[in-house]
Parts: sequence; structure tokens; C-alpha cells
Amino acid sequence: MADLFKDFKEHSIAEFFKKNRQMLGFSGPARSFTVIIHELVTNSLDACEEAGILPEIEVEITQLADDHFKIKVKDNGPGIPEKYVGKALGKMLAGTKFHRYIQQRGQQGIGASGCVMLSYLTSGKNTIAISCFDKVRKEYEIGIDLKRNEPILRKISEQPTEESGLTIISEYKELKYEKSNKGPFEYLRRTALANPHATIKLKEPDGTISVFPRSITVNPPRPFEIKPHPLGISAHDLLEFCQRYAKDYRKLSSLLQEVFSRVSANKVAELRTLTPDVDFDKNPALVTWEEAEKIINSFKKVKWIAPSMDALVPIGKEQIEASFKNIFNPEYLVVTERSPKVYRGGIPFMVEAAIAYGGGVEAAGKKGEIMRFANRVPLLFDASSCAITETIKTIDWSRYNLKNFEEEPIVVLVNFVSVYVPYASTGKLAIAPEEDVMDEIKFAVMEAARGMQRYISGKRRTMELATKKRLVMRYVPQLASDVALLSDEKKEKIEKKLIDIIESKYSKEVEEEETKGEENEEREEEVDVNE
Amino acid sequence: MADLFKDFKEHSIAEFFKKNRQMLGFSGPARSFTVIIHELVTNSLDACEEAGILPEIEVEITQLADDHFKIKVKDNGPGIPEKYVGKALGKMLAGTKFHRYIQQRGQQGIGASGCVMLSYLTSGKNTIAISCFDKVRKEYEIGIDLKRNEPILRKISEQPTEESGLTIISEYKELKYEKSNKGPFEYLRRTALANPHATIKLKEPDGTISVFPRSITVNPPRPFEIKPHPLGISAHDLLEFCQRYAKDYRKLSSLLQEVFSRVSANKVAELRTLTPDVDFDKNPALVTWEEAEKIINSFKKVKWIAPSMDALVPIGKEQIEASFKNIFNPEYLVVTERSPKVYRGGIPFMVEAAIAYGGGVEAAGKKGEIMRFANRVPLLFDASSCAITETIKTIDWSRYNLKNFEEEPIVVLVNFVSVYVPYASTGKLAIAPEEDVMDEIKFAVMEAARGMQRYISGKRRTMELATKKRLVMRYVPQLASDVALLSDEKKEKIEKKLIDIIESKYSKEVEEEETKGEENEEREEEVDVNE
Repeated sequence: MADLFKDFKEHSIAEFFKKNRQMLGFSGPARSFTVIIHELVTNSLDACEEAGILPEIEVEITQLADDHFKIKVKDNGPGIPEKYVGKALGKMLAGTKFHRYIQQRGQQGIGASGCVMLSYLTSGKNTIAISCFDKVRKEYEIGIDLKRNEPILRKISEQPTEESGLTIISEYKELKYEKSNKGPFEYLRRTALANPHATIKLKEPDGTISVFPRSITVNPPRPFEIKPHPLGISAHDLLEFCQRYAKDYRKLSSLLQEVFSRVSANKVAELRTLTPDVDFDKNPALVTWEEAEKIINSFKKVKWIAPSMDALVPIGKEQIEASFKNIFNPEYLVVTERSPKVYRGGIPFMVEAAIAYGGGVEAAGKKGEIMRFANRVPLLFDASSCAITETIKTIDWSRYNLKNFEEEPIVVLVNFVSVYVPYASTGKLAIAPEEDVMDEIKFAVMEAARGMQRYISGKRRTMELATKKRLVMRYVPQLASDVALLSDEKKEKIEKKLIDIIESKYSKEVEEEETKGEENEEREEEVDVNE
Repeated sequence: MADLFKDFKEHSIAEFFKKNRQMLGFSGPARSFTVIIHELVTNSLDACEEAGILPEIEVEITQLADDHFKIKVKDNGPGIPEKYVGKALGKMLAGTKFHRYIQQRGQQGIGASGCVMLSYLTSGKNTIAISCFDKVRKEYEIGIDLKRNEPILRKISEQPTEESGLTIISEYKELKYEKSNKGPFEYLRRTALANPHATIKLKEPDGTISVFPRSITVNPPRPFEIKPHPLGISAHDLLEFCQRYAKDYRKLSSLLQEVFSRVSANKVAELRTLTPDVDFDKNPALVTWEEAEKIINSFKKVKWIAPSMDALVPIGKEQIEASFKNIFNPEYLVVTERSPKVYRGGIPFMVEAAIAYGGGVEAAGKKGEIMRFANRVPLLFDASSCAITETIKTIDWSRYNLKNFEEEPIVVLVNFVSVYVPYASTGKLAIAPEEDVMDEIKFAVMEAARGMQRYISGKRRTMELATKKRLVMRYVPQLASDVALLSDEKKEKIEKKLIDIIESKYSKEVEEEETKGEENEEREEEVDVNE
């Protein structure tokens, strides 16, 4: 029997992702291409912003053979110190972001290392990394020892420089460059749309150079790390905090006040009353699971101040408006920015939505298009399993005077902003359908849709009135000359009077229409509150 | 600048999956429940079959509080030797299956450890494991040190036993027991359907006991490990084999013949001609990436015998028929078993499909239901992103006389069998949409659908003929008495003659109809070959 186990082995996370590369988003030659660009550009944007540098990112794609490409991504960020360069690019699950409670694009510490792995697996080549850090330019060759998930690092050169930044050059086979809605060009165009402070350049395999210049010259406010809210954590989290910080705080009560947000001395007093059999003066290291669970249950009974929302950085209403006008020049545009909310009890998030309708959207042949973003990162794949798409599909668009969403000249943008995005998979291509999140997306899109509806129905009514008026106007000359004959008044005078009457009648109707529209709006707002 | 990196940390795979438990399928209280049952039962079935034991599996679910459950899964497998028990149940990415080229349910070595982790994260309790191995019953308490991805193991008791098997008892909170189409009951019912050699018992929280007894008393033939086919590997794989086996084979040529299937001395000679600048007598350890790539390219030019399909073990036509009759008792049932094929050039797989129509299916209120399996494991979630569902939706069912698939009393079963199932995510809930795989699923379902169509159209035509006949028959008595009056023949005689004429006319039409049906069928088969 024991020989059933003779093959028992342990495997590294790198081997796991080698075998399951589709879980990193590397499935299929076209999708893999976009995911590579996404991982590298995302890292660059995060690095620049963290260092307070306006991002300047260059992507250069060269086709070496049929399915064989060289991809170069260069940024003007701070570069990487030698001590970290291997692990940052050649070891999975290593990085600065995994454990932090802060709004950021990258989270897992897999992206760049995943690209280094894919490059080697498909082309047999190691990745070249040029890091200009602290006035020194160092060039490295980087690979991953998959069996151990450890970097293989070789320094090629070292020389002084005035620049800063990181350049990654890697080769891949089994790729396909597509100029589709899901390709690298569209990915970068949408990235530029959501990051108006960044300048992004792209050189495509056919030599085409596109520049998406920045439209503002200040970085967005830095998101900062926030303390977790009591409603956002589990008993296991609380125990972990107790063990980690036992050396810093002698009493559970002081740990609670320091480690979590919104926990004051008064709140601790309330918790003591709610949980009489837990000793809040005990050493945090001695807290048991049962006690942690009781505290978590009491957390749910206390009335907390909502978590701080300062850490959330949206794209911003003006910026979305400017970007959309720039790209689509639509006939009508409405942007809504909801106030921050929490999901899972304590994780702050907010939703921005925009609707562009008609005009340039129609001219571009766009119909029922949905542009999804999470923390300003475009989501191009897995639309059918994404909370954003799912929510938009549940909206009854006929309420907003749209017959068939997918046949209308409409583009809907949704940006989900949070310190923790509940991605549906490692590839970070879709947002998991959490109820609180979906509700909020729905309200944001509905709010924008109401604005659009007023416009469309106003437009339709105006057209109807104009048609009626035109019809009535047709009778004016004939009527005027007939009345002139009968009354001996001048035809021109009668004609002018008739026109005045018609004009005043129809301008009154337009006014009434507008007042009615506003009333409807108020009624709808009220409905919303109860939803 | 360097302080940007002060938080640089490394993380374990266990921490990763703690944070991303949805990637293991643990998302939402109802889905998590089914996934836990799935992971534990799958491990039990694999263990029993590997040891040549007819599986006898007991699942007992006890509700301890609102969202708090105790789950016990007991099997009669070989148990686990003490040396491996900690790692098998308390360390992720450890196991016997990850690296083997064999048809098996479990593959990643995450499932059971994932359950142990989830149990602790939600209930604070460690898992109890009772292993009866080699005549000794040992009871352990097992947890995972998440920071290091290492097991925490404590032996509770040890005593002699005559039994063998493994029992896992764990507690979970944040679960919800549902008697839905995606719940544990349905999961086990479908598992029983696809594993007629297993007896499965379930005790539900409300005390209901269900037994799905085995209907055959022999285990399916053991799938065995096969050597990889040259068309199924990449340059990176070849290099890895060269390095791993350099100590066993002095020459590349002998390594190729021994490590891969279908590589004969003749084939090596062919490869030498196709790749003159590679020295096939060199030491495998010295093969370079460029050489490996050249060999892989030559692999594609050689005409290979298809990979061995002996390693694939389907459920089997008779078994599916028996199970379906047992469960649905449909009016019509057709099972198709396609011959094995390869995908990605060298990975053998095969598809079984069955269609049950009308009768018990209609009585049970089932409409357009799709039952998905991969290596006999039911797939209950993520239908919309699964190759099976996607393929079935692309089929034009009106060709098969079905107006609207989703409104018809029809159940379609598809079982995907392979040494490597391309799951779309770690949770193993859906098959990734690979083109070769989708084609084959389509052909299998279409083949079954044609069988069903003949039945339905035959049935419809028979009904039409019967209606016509009934209409004509109405005139017989009147006509017979009128003719009797005119001809002086006996009314009864005339009536009998008229009936004979009508009967023979309509039975002839039925025959013609059947012949026409067969012709259609042949024509369609021909079309299929070219598809």
C-alpha cells in the first residue's frame, strides 16, 4: 500500500502557475498579449505614482516572426534597488503590495514574474531589465528557477545615469497581435482615458506610433494606507492582528484602538458591556478563537462611524468628461460619481459611471458598449462573468427610453474604486459579483441613465412639437390671405399675428414639458432611496 | 527612494489562497458548501480506485448553528501513512498527482488542504483526520501554518483496527445548505450517476438519509500513467526532460525513445534528417533551448502514430444508459461515445454524450438541462464560461426538430475524459474553451441529437398519419352504408374493405417515412466527416 505514496511530492507556486498559466490570464495568443501589456504597464503606473512622478510610459512591440514578439515597456519611475530586483521580477508572491490596505492597481506580486516566466516558457529567453535607480543604470538578465520559485539574476552592466526608471524587455512566442477591442492598442487607449495624468506611447508591430498625451499635469492624490475597519475583518484576522502586535501593545483594549480605525475608548467601553466574559485588559497574545469570535460578533452590534473614504481616489467627474469628449465627442454625456460605500461590512469602495450617447458614438459605430475599469485599470476580458456587465444587463433600459441597449449608440463607463477589488480570478479580468458592489454599480448607472433619459425624451418631445408646429405653420399663408380678404386687414400683419400665437403656444408647451421632466426626476430620486 | 521598498515581503501560497479563496471555488455560502463536498469526495474516490477498492463513501452533514456546519466524509480507501498525512492534508501543492500524466479527478494537491484552511479560517477549529492504514487507526488534529504553508499535526490516539480508510471531520461557518440543483445532494446524485461502481451515502442536516447504491461491482479499468506524446510538449518541456533524465540516458536519441511515446529508432532517424544541425548523440544535459526548439519543430513534421488512448476511462455507454433510465426513465434515450482524439497536438481526450427526452424528464419538470462532467466529476458551477455549455448553446437545435432548447423536456449529459483537463480556474468548475475540445463536444452532442431527431420526427409523422387516418375513418360507416344501398352488397363487407384499403395505405406511408429518415441520416453522416 505504501507505494501508492512513493510519488508524493511538493511543488512550488511557480510550477503551479506554469501548469495553470490560464489562471494568470495567459490563455490564447491574443488574450495573453493584452495581459502581458497590462501587467507591465500596471506595475509602471503604480511605481511612478508611488514615487510622486508623472508617469511617462513607452510600449514598443516588435514582431520577430509569425507568432514571436519582443515587448519593451519603459517607465520613468524610481527604478528598483539591486537588493529587490530579482525578487520583484523573478519570484512569485513577492512584492510590496500583497498585504497592504491601500488602493492600488497591482496586488498579488505575480504579474511581472508571470511575464518573466511566460517569456522563458515560450521563447527560452530570459528577460532583460534595466533599472535606473539612485543615479546608477544597471542592466540585468532575469529568469525564474521554477522548481524553487527563486530568481536567477545576472548583472550585465553598470554605469552612472541622470535618468530614473525601469525598462523591461522580453520575448514571447505563441502570441498574436490583434487590433481588436481587446488588443493592446485599445487597452492602452482606455488606460490613458482613465489616467489623464499619464503620457503613454505605443509603437505597434507595423510601425504605427500612437501617443496618448496627458491632459493634466498633476498626479492624482496619493491613495494612502488605512487602518482596517472593525466591520471588515473576521475572527481569524483579529487573532492574527493580536499575535502580530502582541509585542507592541500590552492590552487588548489598546491594540483595538490603535490597529483598527474608528475604535475609540468609548467604543471599547461599549464592547466591554456587550462582551462581559472577555477580558479587554488581557495580553493580546492570549486571546483565544472563541474570544475573538465574541468580539467580532459584538463589533456587529456597535454603531460605527463609516470607514474613512479619503483613501479612495476616483478618476473624477471633470476628467471623465474631458476624456470622453476628447475620444467620442458624443451628442450627450453624463457622468455620475456616487458617494463612497462599504462592502463585506468594512471595505470602502466607490463607483463612477458615465454614459455617452449619440454624436461621435454613433459615427464611430459603437453600440451598447461597456467600458469596465477597476482602480483605473481597463478590464477587457471575461465580460460575461463580471459584476459590471452583469449589473448593466439587469437594468431595464426601456425605462430610460432605450429600446434595445445593444442596438443603441451608447457607451457606458464604470470605474470601481477600492482598497481591495474582489477579482473573480488571478488574471484580474473581472470583478466578482458581490451584492453590495452590484447594487452600487446599478445605482450609479441608473443615475446616469436618468440624465440621459431626460435628454432623449426632451429631444423626442422637442422633435414632436417641432413637427406639429411645422404642420400648423403650413396653413398660415393661406389662412392669412383668406382672413385678409374677409377682414380687409393687411395679409402680412395677420400672418405675423398668427405666427406669434403659434410661437407662444409651442414655447409654452416646451416649458411645461421641462417642468414635467423635473417632477418626474424628483419622484424617481425618492424611489431610489427606498431601493 | 529606497523606503518605497521597505515593505517588500514574500508570501506563501497558503497566504495567497487565504486572500483569494474564491479562486479555490470558495465564494459564497452555498457554492462553498458544494465545493467542500466535491474536494473531499473526489479525494476519496481517487484513493479507493488507486488501491483497487470498490468505493464506499459516507457523507454526513450536521448543522450546529445557523451558518455553522460539521461535515464528515468517510471512505474505505487505503488510508494515509503517517509520514504523509500532514502534507497531504495540511500543505498546499503537495501530493502524488500534480506531475503525473494520468486520468484522475484531483490534480493540483490543493483541494483537501484548502478545506482544512477554510475550516480554520471560518470556525477557528482544526480538522480531525482518522486514517486507518496498515491495520492501525490513528486520529490526528490538523491545521496549516499559513505563513509557511506547512502542516500543524498532532496525533490524538492510535489503536489497532481491521478496517482501512480515511475519515475527515471539519467544521465551517459562513455556509448555507441548499437543496438546489447546485447543492451537495445533487452533486452526489450526479457523482453516483457517473460512478456506478461507487456506493455513496448522504445524511443531510434535516436527518434525511439517501443512499446511491452501486450498480456494478467492478471498479472501472485503472487509468494508467502514459508517456507524453511528442506533439503534446513544448521546447521548455523537452529541455526539462533532458535535464531530469540526463543521468539515465547518455544520448539524446535514447532519451527521446524512452521518455516519449511513439518515438521509435526509425522516427529518430527521420528527426536526424529533418534536423541535421542537432547532434542526437549528444548528452541530454547539453541540449540548448535552440536545439530543443528545432526538435519540437521537427516533431511537427513527422507523421506520428496517435497517442495511446488506453489510458482514457470513460463511464461507458451501458453504464450511462442504465443510470439515465434509473434516474429519469425518459421516453427516449440516446448515448454516444466518440472515439478518442487529441488536443494541443498531443493530449488524448474523449467525449461521451447522452440525450434523454420526454417521459420522466418531462414529469420531473426538467427543461433544457445540461449535466456537465470532467473525468466523472460533476461540474455544477460557472456554466456560462464552460466549453460544454458554450458548445451546446451554439448548436442549432431547430435542425433537430427542437423549437427552443430551453423549453423542451430534454437533458443533455457530456463527460469530458482526459489525462489533463484544461480547467478554467483553480476551483475546477468549468472547462476552458479550447477549440479542439469544443469541436469534439459538438460532434458528440450532434450525433446524439440526430438519434433523438429521428425519434421525434418519426413520432410527429406517426401522429400526423394517425390524425389523417382517424379523419378518413370517420367517413367509413356512412360511405359503407351508402355504397351498400347502391350496390346491394353487405354494409359490413364494404366497411371491412374500406378499412383494409385505408390501413394498407397508411402503413405504407409509415414505411416510406422510415426509409426517408435513414437516407437523411446517411447524408448527414457524410457532412459530418468534412466538418
